[in-house]
Amino acid sequence: MSIFTPNHRPKARSKARLWRIEGGRAWARTEQLATEEPLEIRLLWGDERRTLAVTMRTPGHDFELAAGFLWAEGVVGARDEIRRIAYCTDPGEPQQYNIVNVWLQSDTPPHLAPLERHFYTNSACGVCGRAGLENLRRRYAPLEAGWQVSSPVITQLPSLLHRQQKLFQQTGGLHAAALFDPHGNLLALREDVGRHNALDKLLGWALLENRLPLSEGVVLVSGRASYELAQKTLAAGIPVLCAISAPSSLAVELAREFNLTLIGFLRDSFNIYSAPERIKLTD
Amino acid sequence: MSIFTPNHRPKARSKARLWRIEGGRAWARTEQLATEEPLEIRLLWGDERRTLAVTMRTPGHDFELAAGFLWAEGVVGARDEIRRIAYCTDPGEPQQYNIVNVWLQSDTPPHLAPLERHFYTNSACGVCGRAGLENLRRRYAPLEAGWQVSSPVITQLPSLLHRQQKLFQQTGGLHAAALFDPHGNLLALREDVGRHNALDKLLGWALLENRLPLSEGVVLVSGRASYELAQKTLAAGIPVLCAISAPSSLAVELAREFNLTLIGFLRDSFNIYSAPERIKLTD
Repeated sequence: MSIFTPNHRPKARSKARLWRIEGGRAWARTEQLATEEPLEIRLLWGDERRTLAVTMRTPGHDFELAAGFLWAEGVVGARDEIRRIAYCTDPGEPQQYNIVNVWLQSDTPPHLAPLERHFYTNSACGVCGRAGLENLRRRYAPLEAGWQVSSPVITQLPSLLHRQQKLFQQTGGLHAAALFDPHGNLLALREDVGRHNALDKLLGWALLENRLPLSEGVVLVSGRASYELAQKTLAAGIPVLCAISAPSSLAVELAREFNLTLIGFLRDSFNIYSAPERIKLTD
Repeated sequence: MSIFTPNHRPKARSKARLWRIEGGRAWARTEQLATEEPLEIRLLWGDERRTLAVTMRTPGHDFELAAGFLWAEGVVGARDEIRRIAYCTDPGEPQQYNIVNVWLQSDTPPHLAPLERHFYTNSACGVCGRAGLENLRRRYAPLEAGWQVSSPVITQLPSLLHRQQKLFQQTGGLHAAALFDPHGNLLALREDVGRHNALDKLLGWALLENRLPLSEGVVLVSGRASYELAQKTLAAGIPVLCAISAPSSLAVELAREFNLTLIGFLRDSFNIYSAPERIKLTD
């Protein structure tokens, strides 16, 4: 297993031998798979060190993934709060490329309470109920109306995404998240076996490029729109979230609460679930 | 938001008003969405109580979800270790149908160490590296060869799944996991916005029905095969895992290590990535 030998840099694609079965006959083949490996995100401040998350991800853009995760979870609120990001190179550490260390500028303990919802705990549940929504309201203001994007721009986004999904074309096994401007120009695209990771990588790219909040951005995700994807979009200040497939009930509720334009089933036509005023209808 | 008013029983589907946009024109519509709500899984033993997980799930089969999660994580090793499962009805608790309490028979503390990989911690990472694989080897023996399933049975599974995916047909927004016998008879099917949850529900059904290990089972998942889905399949003792879409590199590695037959890209034809001896080729 690759998790035996992780002290070389893992690739985004892995070769696999397989048997192709068609009509009762078998052929041996070699194909490309999307690589999936654990990534441990460690936060360091003063003399302290804490593992914040272990996520199964596709290697590549790992620093962005760590930065985006910390931003979306509210642990980091600005680019300059991060002093340095690097793979763990502790002597004797056999997981060098599967551990990312993020050093904070400040020696004061960071605010880790919002993360608790991911972990086992005796305290009240952070995402459930009133406390969860009040916590979101403390963190995010409703998105402003601002600007419009035309419906033909929206319907062309899926083909722009598919053309650039290089790893997906090779492996058939990856989610993607892409950022566009209001004219439909592609600004960045990230792929990952985990759909949350793809969006975290996009957010991390924006954070490290000092582009947050992305108040003129349109994001497109390759699959469904869940609560977590809507929350991360909100965290980035992106006012329009499009999904190729269906949204969940909670994604729609969150979008309505914070005036996020949520689009689903995006092909030649699409559904708008919230904040339709940002979409300008033209033939 | 529904997370405001959770003390009525949530439904698996939710109605949403939306605008359908086609060729520059808009129609108001009402459609069904897959419901997504948090579920908190609490474990109780003696006088102790611990929240083990908060997962975003589609309501329905919640007790199975909790039971399957506990089995897959190795917290519970047999049906009779569970004394009772019920929604939390604490006075003043506003989240009654989003909290499941699982009481253990024994008063001795359960083995929660394997769960630590989900949570932030100062300890070594449970899923990464040698420790992760050795932990899996302690828990699981390689699956035995046992029996065969014929290739035409395999290729008919997707249509059997789609026909039974009732919530998906209505919402377009759900993952499914289905259990078949070696002749292609459907034994159980579960749907959820989270693909891990769909499989956990299936495992929980089997546990509560006293059917584990499922050594004569074939499982089909509606999407991709990840490490976690392969690990849960292994935990249930199911020797054949089929996925409609691509497997990840780590799913293949895990399957090969434990002699699990892993099938991907299952349509009229399919790929076998490991343990092909369980598949009998016939026209």
